Amino acid sequence: MTVVYEKVALIGLGLIASSMFWAMKRGHVAGHVSGYARSAETRDTARRIGLCDTVCDSAEEAVKDADLVVLAVPVGAMASVAQAIAPYLKAGATVTDVGSVKGTVLSAVGPHIPQGVHFVPAHPMAGTEHSGPESGFATLFDNRWCLIVPPEGADETAVVRLEDYWKALGANIERMDPEHHDLVCAVVSHIPHLIAYTMVGVADDLQRVTDQEVIRFSAAGFRDFTRIAASDPTMWRDVFLTNKDATIEMLGRFTEELFALQRAIRTGDGEQLHAYFTRTRAIRRSILEAGQDTDAPDFGRAKVER
Amino acid sequence: MTVVYEKVALIGLGLIASSMFWAMKRGHVAGHVSGYARSAETRDTARRIGLCDTVCDSAEEAVKDADLVVLAVPVGAMASVAQAIAPYLKAGATVTDVGSVKGTVLSAVGPHIPQGVHFVPAHPMAGTEHSGPESGFATLFDNRWCLIVPPEGADETAVVRLEDYWKALGANIERMDPEHHDLVCAVVSHIPHLIAYTMVGVADDLQRVTDQEVIRFSAAGFRDFTRIAASDPTMWRDVFLTNKDATIEMLGRFTEELFALQRAIRTGDGEQLHAYFTRTRAIRRSILEAGQDTDAPDFGRAKVER
Repeated sequence: MTVVYEKVALIGLGLIASSMFWAMKRGHVAGHVSGYARSAETRDTARRIGLCDTVCDSAEEAVKDADLVVLAVPVGAMASVAQAIAPYLKAGATVTDVGSVKGTVLSAVGPHIPQGVHFVPAHPMAGTEHSGPESGFATLFDNRWCLIVPPEGADETAVVRLEDYWKALGANIERMDPEHHDLVCAVVSHIPHLIAYTMVGVADDLQRVTDQEVIRFSAAGFRDFTRIAASDPTMWRDVFLTNKDATIEMLGRFTEELFALQRAIRTGDGEQLHAYFTRTRAIRRSILEAGQDTDAPDFGRAKVER
Repeated sequence: MTVVYEKVALIGLGLIASSMFWAMKRGHVAGHVSGYARSAETRDTARRIGLCDTVCDSAEEAVKDADLVVLAVPVGAMASVAQAIAPYLKAGATVTDVGSVKGTVLSAVGPHIPQGVHFVPAHPMAGTEHSGPESGFATLFDNRWCLIVPPEGADETAVVRLEDYWKALGANIERMDPEHHDLVCAVVSHIPHLIAYTMVGVADDLQRVTDQEVIRFSAAGFRDFTRIAASDPTMWRDVFLTNKDATIEMLGRFTEELFALQRAIRTGDGEQLHAYFTRTRAIRRSILEAGQDTDAPDFGRAKVER
């Protein structure tokens, strides 16, 4: 593959940024990758495991001469990071991010971006329940979607180049406007996470069922919830606080539906339950057909390789 | 391994019964296994793939001379099956079941069991989202729990023998009383399933987010829900109808907790959200330590082998 950006700067070195680094190395997508993380411990870890060609002690140093700057920090931290690096950005560079909410990122980061620098938000829809600099792997984005959310009037050449970059990392790309992005993500990602967190919290709270029982017998459905509910707390706090409207709207729909099923259980309406469960089973089949999951016993989850 | 029961009869030939058959063959746990399914198509499939040593055209024929009779039909069908086979049960035989609800099974099946026949309900807590005679595999129960729920006054020798049988199929066993069983299962299994069904249904209902989008972008959390929500509709209808009280009680706890988190989102209480998500992450760690899930990229799901 050909190099898409000569120099890429990763700000934040967690699961997504570290996976981007290994995917860039795999595909020779960047000439040089610099990295910065706020915590000295994370920078030390990055140096130890060879994450980034150069690990810098400041964000300003990391973004110097970079053709692409990736903000890979929690959504709530993006505004201050953007403000800090703004004076050091190269003319003609592109700033992007990997946040799960796009409306807030546009309004928080956009105003800090200087004239002559492009700003093209993106959202790679991939992850695991692990976090930190050692959790990344090169195949994380393979055949996953990366949503590209350019602001109005964005430079088309810069947008297409970012799309080429994400394709080179293994992802499929799709453009979306920010409002629709935040609604779609509330449905397919944010609400499922909140529900999983809630369910795991309820189980932990119970007095009549012991923790030991919850843990021992978790294989029967609860296990998948705990995996989702083990995701990074800071990232998810910021997601819910910054995608508040869509989250609360979708929660309303969810509880409405849940109460309807609860009513069917209370009144013994087996027909309604059976019809509902048959319909959801068909949706699963569509997802398998769309290639976004697999029937295989390993769920098609890629082996972790660096 | 030594044969635990000379003749075992499987009534119903779905995921659980077919997995039991392959696990019995693997461990030489039974001398002869007969099987019966209500549907002629299922019986034909069973004959074609070598499921059971003998496939019978009636339940009465299948249970003849059996030392262990396993009721592997949906909970709602157990009473009529028990009534049909009762006159044909061998003196000294044990009848068990594999239902996910135990209070109802005890009251529905118990009265039909003749004097001189033992009745020891059991619940193997293992499964996949697939169903039918071709979905079973020998390793399904390995290192999973099978809860043994003997009625008051059950014959201790018969109970221990059934426990030995499940151990020989690969399971860990634990005794529990029926009421507590139904509460524990509501928490670790029934409510998680209902919630997953609901979430998938909500996503499917939305007008502003297209089906295509839900399906394409499902990797971001929603995917695990669809797997759970693809489970057998008849089985799950019966679970909710027969474990009504515990289900409705636990749903109440769940919505209470969900509303508390929704309020934290609405009021922007980031501290509460972060503390909650940190706590649920710790629960995940306990489950890994208890050996009920794995950190491995394939989720430790066993390869399907017959």
